[in-house]
Amino acid sequence: MNRKYLLTALTATASCLLCAQETAAPAAVSAAHASAEMFTVNNLWILLGAILVFAMHPGFALVETGLCRAKNSVNILAKNVLTVAIGLLTFAILGFNLMYPGDNWILGHFLGFGGFGISAPEGAAAAIEYNGGLYGYWTDFIFQGMFAATSVTIVSGAVAERIKFNAYIIFAVLYAAFGYTLIGSWGWGGGWLKELGFYDLAGSTFVHSVGGWAALVGAFLLGPRIGKYVNGKTHAIPGSNLGFATLGVFLLWFGWFGFNGASVFSAEPVMVAYVFTTTALSAAAGLVAAMATSWIAQGKPDLSMILNGCLAGLVGITAGADCVSIQSSCAIGIISGVIVVLSVYFFDKIHIDDPVGALSVHLVCGVWGTIAVGIFSPAHALMPQIIGVLAVAAASLAFSGIIFAALKKTIGIRVGKSDELKGLDISEHGMEAYNGFQIFSNE
Amino acid sequence: MNRKYLLTALTATASCLLCAQETAAPAAVSAAHASAEMFTVNNLWILLGAILVFAMHPGFALVETGLCRAKNSVNILAKNVLTVAIGLLTFAILGFNLMYPGDNWILGHFLGFGGFGISAPEGAAAAIEYNGGLYGYWTDFIFQGMFAATSVTIVSGAVAERIKFNAYIIFAVLYAAFGYTLIGSWGWGGGWLKELGFYDLAGSTFVHSVGGWAALVGAFLLGPRIGKYVNGKTHAIPGSNLGFATLGVFLLWFGWFGFNGASVFSAEPVMVAYVFTTTALSAAAGLVAAMATSWIAQGKPDLSMILNGCLAGLVGITAGADCVSIQSSCAIGIISGVIVVLSVYFFDKIHIDDPVGALSVHLVCGVWGTIAVGIFSPAHALMPQIIGVLAVAAASLAFSGIIFAALKKTIGIRVGKSDELKGLDISEHGMEAYNGFQIFSNE
Amino acid sequence: MNRKYLLTALTATASCLLCAQETAAPAAVSAAHASAEMFTVNNLWILLGAILVFAMHPGFALVETGLCRAKNSVNILAKNVLTVAIGLLTFAILGFNLMYPGDNWILGHFLGFGGFGISAPEGAAAAIEYNGGLYGYWTDFIFQGMFAATSVTIVSGAVAERIKFNAYIIFAVLYAAFGYTLIGSWGWGGGWLKELGFYDLAGSTFVHSVGGWAALVGAFLLGPRIGKYVNGKTHAIPGSNLGFATLGVFLLWFGWFGFNGASVFSAEPVMVAYVFTTTALSAAAGLVAAMATSWIAQGKPDLSMILNGCLAGLVGITAGADCVSIQSSCAIGIISGVIVVLSVYFFDKIHIDDPVGALSVHLVCGVWGTIAVGIFSPAHALMPQIIGVLAVAAASLAFSGIIFAALKKTIGIRVGKSDELKGLDISEHGMEAYNGFQIFSNE
Repeated sequence: MNRKYLLTALTATASCLLCAQETAAPAAVSAAHASAEMFTVNNLWILLGAILVFAMHPGFALVETGLCRAKNSVNILAKNVLTVAIGLLTFAILGFNLMYPGDNWILGHFLGFGGFGISAPEGAAAAIEYNGGLYGYWTDFIFQGMFAATSVTIVSGAVAERIKFNAYIIFAVLYAAFGYTLIGSWGWGGGWLKELGFYDLAGSTFVHSVGGWAALVGAFLLGPRIGKYVNGKTHAIPGSNLGFATLGVFLLWFGWFGFNGASVFSAEPVMVAYVFTTTALSAAAGLVAAMATSWIAQGKPDLSMILNGCLAGLVGITAGADCVSIQSSCAIGIISGVIVVLSVYFFDKIHIDDPVGALSVHLVCGVWGTIAVGIFSPAHALMPQIIGVLAVAAASLAFSGIIFAALKKTIGIRVGKSDELKGLDISEHGMEAYNGFQIFSNE
Repeated sequence: MNRKYLLTALTATASCLLCAQETAAPAAVSAAHASAEMFTVNNLWILLGAILVFAMHPGFALVETGLCRAKNSVNILAKNVLTVAIGLLTFAILGFNLMYPGDNWILGHFLGFGGFGISAPEGAAAAIEYNGGLYGYWTDFIFQGMFAATSVTIVSGAVAERIKFNAYIIFAVLYAAFGYTLIGSWGWGGGWLKELGFYDLAGSTFVHSVGGWAALVGAFLLGPRIGKYVNGKTHAIPGSNLGFATLGVFLLWFGWFGFNGASVFSAEPVMVAYVFTTTALSAAAGLVAAMATSWIAQGKPDLSMILNGCLAGLVGITAGADCVSIQSSCAIGIISGVIVVLSVYFFDKIHIDDPVGALSVHLVCGVWGTIAVGIFSPAHALMPQIIGVLAVAAASLAFSGIIFAALKKTIGIRVGKSDELKGLDISEHGMEAYNGFQIFSNE
Repeated sequence: MNRKYLLTALTATASCLLCAQETAAPAAVSAAHASAEMFTVNNLWILLGAILVFAMHPGFALVETGLCRAKNSVNILAKNVLTVAIGLLTFAILGFNLMYPGDNWILGHFLGFGGFGISAPEGAAAAIEYNGGLYGYWTDFIFQGMFAATSVTIVSGAVAERIKFNAYIIFAVLYAAFGYTLIGSWGWGGGWLKELGFYDLAGSTFVHSVGGWAALVGAFLLGPRIGKYVNGKTHAIPGSNLGFATLGVFLLWFGWFGFNGASVFSAEPVMVAYVFTTTALSAAAGLVAAMATSWIAQGKPDLSMILNGCLAGLVGITAGADCVSIQSSCAIGIISGVIVVLSVYFFDKIHIDDPVGALSVHLVCGVWGTIAVGIFSPAHALMPQIIGVLAVAAASLAFSGIIFAALKKTIGIRVGKSDELKGLDISEHGMEAYNGFQIFSNE
């Protein structure tokens, strides 16, 4: 159960990047990986990365709650907090060993499985030799486990305000346990996409588009919310708490420093700081670009577009944060910020109802960020990136399509009309989120 | 002022755990504690742990605000932010030296005091020799100081919506300064419970049940809120902002990684990551178990039960996060999640009104988590755990009982009936939390 | 592009402090800066400091949103999230090289510029030799870049609820790019104030008063909000969400540990932990002092005063967190907490309308904290501190005055009367923050 594939790639990328940047990591830093102290520092950073990725979950929860109506808040909050638990538990039971099968490949480098449960490798030296002495086994589990819930959480946003709670739970369990992990094994687990030269640092594809394709399937099969598209016209359904939505975006940006920064899998000073810089600049550029785009298109700067522009920049830079130049990171962010706004208009035009803009942010910019590696990184070719995007699209669409279609045929995926109008908080949970506050009946 | 007692116990536990897990920390890692680099890394992690524990305080504040009514929000927020200040200041003035008296025991190993104020030990080598070279004096102070406020904050939740602000302040000062610290010295300060073999990694007993017993006394002496139990029937008083409550739980979970993880008192890679893993899995298991229990009992999955189940799992694993197996951590979480729901029903049945479920989460699961160490840890016996639970119960009940009873006899602890109906925000602070929002008059 | 000036000063301060405290950093710790491991640890802490300073931005956003009216929330949130992007982008384009010109001084030690854009120094050893081997180039950029937005964010609070969005953007770009950076270069960039012996650890002057003076100019030129001062009487305009305001203060306090703690520019155990301790105690003392002052003055403990007292203590300790005694840190906090309340009354008396108390917190306590270094630190003289305060006041007032006056003459800085009454959310952004909630029309 090692990930030497990944590490080799990272080292290769690093030297390429540093060469491109005409700087170089001090030899002393690289050589010292073997020391107990360096092991401890690297390990500590990955652990902190796990906490930071965890902090993205309240971010997702608040963005979704804030951009949806008050009457569905309890349901949204329940889905989001539950998704973290599902991600962690399924990853412990089998996900970790599906995604990182080590040498236990069953079907070429397409499907592997290292067995049920988690247990550290035996022997005194196992911890320090694990993955080249960069970090320990449990550190690896908890960091990767925090990622496991994120792709499903993306789906949560697109299917909000109309999906049945039990259908969502079943989907979340299956997609977190088998979908995210199997597809991820192709790259991060050392599978066939890795061998092809496909590169995705922290998950523009393996997290965001894996979630995004499933979100597309879910939103399509569910159909739009009542009242969203009437007689061919789009009716905006404004969010109930833009304060929550903004705080959520801040938390996501905050956590993204760990998401991208700890995906370097060491505390190597130059690499981590460089990833922080490209991540922050792409987010800032995406935010400004989306504000400008919405200002031009709508006549006024739209806060939800500003927020989605920030997230778009973050998703866009995630695949290549360690291997594109500073200027390229800004370009990636700007393009992400423009296309996220256009994409929101596009999905409304084709009547795919996505309450929070998850498709535009995670799917469209996830694909864009993956392709951008092939365009902007001196170390990577375009073709493997395109193949990776298409292969992951096919697998994600197929996998989520089968689950959602099966659920639709059996227990059903959409709440009844009166339940939807009443709100899922009352119909699914028998409680409300803002007791004592006067809320308009139709919202 | 050293804590060699604690460190010896931790090392013993570590070897036990690692032995049980058939792994071992690389010798190099342990041996290297003496180096300046290792000292710096260990110290940095404890400092980060202090920040993470700090982050639990907004978590407590939001859970309590969210689960109570809008008309008491200002009061709750004021109590919570003030409690942090009280905890830090009393700990600096005398709490630190009461809790960690070093060799300055006055009454057996039952009461010690190292003097007023805080000042680092003298001499060039003091910092690095302090506690075996793991971290510095000020680091120790700030990490422990962040804990000092947490037990009192637990009380805050159980006495919410009816306690006088001035009575709460006096209780908080006395309990933080003398109650939490004196009782804690029995274990973490190297006192008689420590010598007995009692084990509590991060405070299932010394934080959560110490707060929980006082919360029980407070809730009992105050009596239930007006309208909660009428003619023998329980009337649910739903929370005003489930968004805040959920964010609060996320913040608590986030901070708990530092609460438990830095209680290892070093950045030792295997130990910290293992504690992260057991902590996360117990929280996840508690969440799912509480959801299932409430779904079965109430017919629908209740968000406040889901949230309390998550916290229950966290409280339950806190005593033994470093010394139980992965499977045991899940078992502890599941049991915590079931009993927290049953406990909420039980306290309502006996008409103890606890607006946020603090008794069920912190007291019941704090006791359970402490006992669980005796059941699941191969390194610890059951009897010392039971003795510890009982001794801490007796001391906490007596101490908080004396304070609350004295306050009740003198200045009074409960606001007047009309003030309670009007809300404590207006009556105690002359202001409201949500100005401009239409709030129902009776909420 | 080195900051040896700063580092020398820090080392001098450290030895002074430690001498005053009769402790000493272990020689081994200081000597080991050269090792790759120590470089990595130091670098990691500065990177974490960058994340923590980032976390202050949601804090600013929530404090401002919570203390203002619901009808201006979207505008406030948009301003705050945009300010982070502006700070980062302008800092990358030219701010970093204006603030830290290295040897590229143009006008004495008063104005320097190292060129456009950011790029790491060349050569294999550059990273490790950069700034004495304490941390890398990109680490330096991202940490300083996170600071760049903070001074402008302070202005945002004082001009809230009436400034035009486009005018704010232009001001923010110019002040972040040229104002904050040029003035900061005088001290942190090794300029003339540094040479004079002026000391400001983390920005009581260079962040808080630089923002505070501009906030004063903005609030003065804009005039008070409609209805705030009528017939010579002050009408309180209560905040819409004290939950947000309190969470914001908690986030600011949380981030401040990085703001002050990483301004030590290494992970040196004694220094960082000492700064954590003084920072926490000053905040706690300020909170309690402001509560007491407001309780005496108003008859009831005012939550917004409690919150501002906490922030006042944080701003007050920021200049000298590493060079005053523990007792002095408490004294600084108490005085900050008293003067922040009196200052709020004072600004209302002279009819300067500051919706969130930014002038009292950041300007008054920023000045006080800077002077306090001259009073309480054994290593610093009073006169350079006074000169620094005055010079920065003059420059900030002049710079912000020119920008705001020019904007007022051209595009105008204040929204129209009906737009202000309607709220900036509708008039500037065409959307509302709390859809579905019943909000009073006049709020």
